Amino acid sequence: MKIDVYFSPAQVDEMQLRDKNVVVIDVLRASTTIVTALNNGAREIIPVGSIESAVKVSGNLFGDVVLRGGERNGKIITGFNLGNSPSEYTEDAVKGKSIIFCTTNGSSAMVKAKYAKRMAVGGFINVSLVADFIRQAGEDFSIVCAGEKQLFCMEDAVCAGMLVKMLVEDSPVVVDVNDAAGAAQVLYKTVGKNLLKMAKSSDHGKYLVDIGFESDLKTCVSVDSIPVLPLLIGNVIKLKKEEAKHSITLDVQEG
Amino acid sequence: MKIDVYFSPAQVDEMQLRDKNVVVIDVLRASTTIVTALNNGAREIIPVGSIESAVKVSGNLFGDVVLRGGERNGKIITGFNLGNSPSEYTEDAVKGKSIIFCTTNGSSAMVKAKYAKRMAVGGFINVSLVADFIRQAGEDFSIVCAGEKQLFCMEDAVCAGMLVKMLVEDSPVVVDVNDAAGAAQVLYKTVGKNLLKMAKSSDHGKYLVDIGFESDLKTCVSVDSIPVLPLLIGNVIKLKKEEAKHSITLDVQEG
Repeated sequence: MKIDVYFSPAQVDEMQLRDKNVVVIDVLRASTTIVTALNNGAREIIPVGSIESAVKVSGNLFGDVVLRGGERNGKIITGFNLGNSPSEYTEDAVKGKSIIFCTTNGSSAMVKAKYAKRMAVGGFINVSLVADFIRQAGEDFSIVCAGEKQLFCMEDAVCAGMLVKMLVEDSPVVVDVNDAAGAAQVLYKTVGKNLLKMAKSSDHGKYLVDIGFESDLKTCVSVDSIPVLPLLIGNVIKLKKEEAKHSITLDVQEG
Repeated sequence: MKIDVYFSPAQVDEMQLRDKNVVVIDVLRASTTIVTALNNGAREIIPVGSIESAVKVSGNLFGDVVLRGGERNGKIITGFNLGNSPSEYTEDAVKGKSIIFCTTNGSSAMVKAKYAKRMAVGGFINVSLVADFIRQAGEDFSIVCAGEKQLFCMEDAVCAGMLVKMLVEDSPVVVDVNDAAGAAQVLYKTVGKNLLKMAKSSDHGKYLVDIGFESDLKTCVSVDSIPVLPLLIGNVIKLKKEEAKHSITLDVQEG
């Protein structure tokens, strides 16, 4: 069993991820927001890679059962219903809704995994469940850190390291890892001792504090606080156990 | 003063590096080979991004004062004079020669820095001198790890971490660092305690051992063993102190 970590989506392209098992990690904040939204009853999340694509995909459905959520530079996009703070994705706001979701890093990384065999969304808030999912699959996995504008992000690397450590320490088979997965474990064991402190001193954490989202940081590093598993099913992200009876068909191919 | 580390050349493009101060690190083995070649009297190194470019650039000069050096998958390229092992770049082989240099990761990263204000080539073998160079410049620097096929490499990250640690600990001004520079320091302080062991257990180190280059690993992690500083001057790499009186004019623009 091989676990490879990629510190930036720039290091992989969608054809490399084709038929692979993928976990996308965007701790601050897309992973956390998606997990929160689905746990609060959102019907599905439709990840898109650009604002143009979000507008095109939502089309006439927009405003009824379909919402647009996401951010640029951490802030809500003009014309969108929701930003990228998990605190906005309450039951009142999202129950029964399909959410077209466009963020700078997370949703773009998820779109890159559109040809993957499996794609799960992971963060600190559901990390143990992601580890269970990988163990049950029993196959090689690629863990893609969403990072920030193609760059390395400490919080995603530390979360990847926590996940890899769980897999390496509790596996019936030998788990082989790449250099980045080894580095991620080292970072988790050192910088990850105090997750909130780590998040607050990270580049993107500092930026979020500056623009008024300090309270999100605590939410985003709360380990196993929302144990549900978002999975890409077709071209939408849903909870694993949820039965999709009446899925709206939407084209999420990027132009 | 800001020191940013990039774990992969995929995270930056040449326009981002324009007018910046850049250090390119490719421990295994381009940095080590370039330092060795110039220390053994090579006139200059001409980095190119592709084999086609190497052939085009060398043209009619090839075989006289101009040699071709480099690798694909760690092995010498057909039609080239030299591979990418520092042990090949002896005084007998390289003295007075211009070497057109094409490697999978290192030379490509150096070509990306062609519009930089300053570009130095660094590895463990000249790390203290690189630190001195940055201190003397007294400006922001971008440290680009060449990695391996766009991926994170432990040996480059650890070397970057050693360099950042030197700068942070011995600076008259506050040194601000990005997440990757922070992570690199953590990796140096942990995994970097035994550099040879680290190199032997790294992805690319293991591969080099497999194809018969184990002895290169010791050379490549010998700290400050060849204290010379290769710098990009015009479109060639030369030693800092060397006076270029009769530089051959070559076009190294990528096609």
